[in-house]
Amino acid sequence: ATTFRASEHQHIRYNPLQDEWVLVSAHRMKRPWQGQVEPVLMKTVPRHDPLNPLCPGATRANGEVNPNYDGTFLFDNDFPALQPDAPDPGPSDHPLFQAGAARGVCKVMCFHPWSDVTLPLMSVPEIRAVVDAWASVTEELGAQYPWVQIFENKGAMMGCSNPHPHCQVWASSFLPDIAQREERSQQAYHRQYGEPLLLEYGHQELLRKERLVLTSEHWLVLVPFWAMWPFQTLLLPRRHVRRLPELTPAERDDLASIMKKLLTKYDNLFETSFPYSMGWHGAPTGVEAGTACDHWQLHAHYYPPLLRSATVRKFMVGYEMLAQAQRDLTPEQAAERLRALPEVHYCLAQR
Amino acid sequence: ATTFRASEHQHIRYNPLQDEWVLVSAHRMKRPWQGQVEPVLMKTVPRHDPLNPLCPGATRANGEVNPNYDGTFLFDNDFPALQPDAPDPGPSDHPLFQAGAARGVCKVMCFHPWSDVTLPLMSVPEIRAVVDAWASVTEELGAQYPWVQIFENKGAMMGCSNPHPHCQVWASSFLPDIAQREERSQQAYHRQYGEPLLLEYGHQELLRKERLVLTSEHWLVLVPFWAMWPFQTLLLPRRHVRRLPELTPAERDDLASIMKKLLTKYDNLFETSFPYSMGWHGAPTGVEAGTACDHWQLHAHYYPPLLRSATVRKFMVGYEMLAQAQRDLTPEQAAERLRALPEVHYCLAQR
Ligand SMILES: O=P(O)(O)O[C@H]1O[C@H](CO)[C@@H](O)[C@H](O)[C@H]1O
Ligand SMILES: O=P(O)(O)O[C@H]1O[C@H](CO)[C@@H](O)[C@H](O)[C@H]1O
Repeated sequence: ATTFRASEHQHIRYNPLQDEWVLVSAHRMKRPWQGQVEPVLMKTVPRHDPLNPLCPGATRANGEVNPNYDGTFLFDNDFPALQPDAPDPGPSDHPLFQAGAARGVCKVMCFHPWSDVTLPLMSVPEIRAVVDAWASVTEELGAQYPWVQIFENKGAMMGCSNPHPHCQVWASSFLPDIAQREERSQQAYHRQYGEPLLLEYGHQELLRKERLVLTSEHWLVLVPFWAMWPFQTLLLPRRHVRRLPELTPAERDDLASIMKKLLTKYDNLFETSFPYSMGWHGAPTGVEAGTACDHWQLHAHYYPPLLRSATVRKFMVGYEMLAQAQRDLTPEQAAERLRALPEVHYCLAQR
Repeated sequence: ATTFRASEHQHIRYNPLQDEWVLVSAHRMKRPWQGQVEPVLMKTVPRHDPLNPLCPGATRANGEVNPNYDGTFLFDNDFPALQPDAPDPGPSDHPLFQAGAARGVCKVMCFHPWSDVTLPLMSVPEIRAVVDAWASVTEELGAQYPWVQIFENKGAMMGCSNPHPHCQVWASSFLPDIAQREERSQQAYHRQYGEPLLLEYGHQELLRKERLVLTSEHWLVLVPFWAMWPFQTLLLPRRHVRRLPELTPAERDDLASIMKKLLTKYDNLFETSFPYSMGWHGAPTGVEAGTACDHWQLHAHYYPPLLRSATVRKFMVGYEMLAQAQRDLTPEQAAERLRALPEVHYCLAQR
């Protein structure tokens, strides 16, 4: 019988955090690609555009004028998917027709006054200001809502409609689907093994070393064993931290620095401003959230779509939508490639 | 207090088949779109291209020459994600590092000898031949494998790398993730209520009428109450059918006809060759599958990405990837729009 080699032989892997399986078929990278190629975005973004509603001093859709902010800037999304006062749909009349109330708020957070920078091109103190703003908005909205979802859609490929560096914050009266899954899995693991799932997972990855991308005093970045997206990563604190506001000043500085390194590697991979969706998950908030959240470990997920080059992405379609996620290189191969990349941004190195 | 209106007030809905929630924020369609626009595909496809490996008489990557087929044509995928002989990764040494064996086969099925047609432009007898081919391949591969996933990726937007009308068939030694979810939900429902979930669901939709798109003697097409994608539909037989091979000749003819109508409506919606991923789900197959699958109802899912026009799609990114699927119009609005569309294809009507 042939010996199993992950990079040669397809197999399935289990994601214990979100309770799902992925098919790993690494030999598939060998096939030629004749499908859709994304447009190369060469257009240069002006540093300041008075017509861009995210810029300092610009007028937004609702007529409000932005302050001349010089750090981060948080404001209400003018087209929110969640509003604070939606009425309840009422009880359902059949088990197959269940609807529930949804209330919340949607905010936008600009990272920087300039439109022509991205996080990896910002300085560590500037990124640290973003970390602080994430922690405060979690605290502020978490006082009222059980879930505060911070996420960044970066790049046109990820549906991002504005090049100005920004993220979004959607707080909701309900625990979203993926939050529920992570809640269930972490709770079950903690009950069975007596420690937080992701804390043990981080320890294991530090021992095994195969999937590490970056480590620092307080943080680690790795390609999870069960990664779905080609260059997906997981950013974890080394100590047990439940929510962003708990981070110490030293941990925040270190986070800013490791994020800059990770995003620089991402940009360097295909020498492009690397598109992705990323977001933070931490213990639920709100009035009910209290003591019973020791099973939670704070973490950020990075989901970048690119597979082969700056213009060839992974399509999560057909089989993936109808059966199971499938990846074309092993997480270990992805980690190795990311590890090998320089920590100096290709745009800055050329100067 | 304001009265709840689904088209005005965001709310969440439950998908009892796949056990997940969706956020419905219909007021969001009002926001302007400034994001990525897909390239308009005006390029005309030649009817026959001897260099296209899917064409009759063409040579494939492995050197084999296609027959001069004049109906459907099934062959082995030259770059399969699943191969029949992959070794087992062996037992895992830690609960957070679980891998499993994956064996299978991947096939490609051409629908028609011509590259410049699509299913809605084919005749009902030609589509009927596709239905028969789907039933036989399910029977053939289902003899050995517990899951036979038939799926079609249509359009470059859906990662389809060849314009020739075709679908894929991936059979696996394991029940894929989504199959597992549907297995669990249908089993639980059947145990609790004594009838198949989707049979009762179809009955309810026939009574409620709000989400129906098409009905025929043996089939119905509806936008499910819990649809995630803007114009997602579910195609269901009216009687209890577990797998494709069980369909009677009359049901197959009727299926060909309702598929042609649905896909014509899809193309007419934005006057474009409508991209989508679609696929069939039926009771598990293989040696173990036998009698205990009365909770299963055969069905096809259609997942089309377009939202506003032929070039503006829905992006399932940020919030959707990290928290919960979100849609921008109600399923009822989508059904109404699809219902209103003509059943004659815009390309044929212009002639
Ligand atoms: O096999 P194809 O059509 O080249 O590939 C397409 O469908 C597959 C199955 O859904 C996906 O895994 C690929 O990402 C996609 O590009
Ligand atoms: O709010 P935006 O950035 O315009 O919109 C983008 O992000 C949202 C949240 O992930 C998605 O629902 C939209 O489909 C996407 O285009």
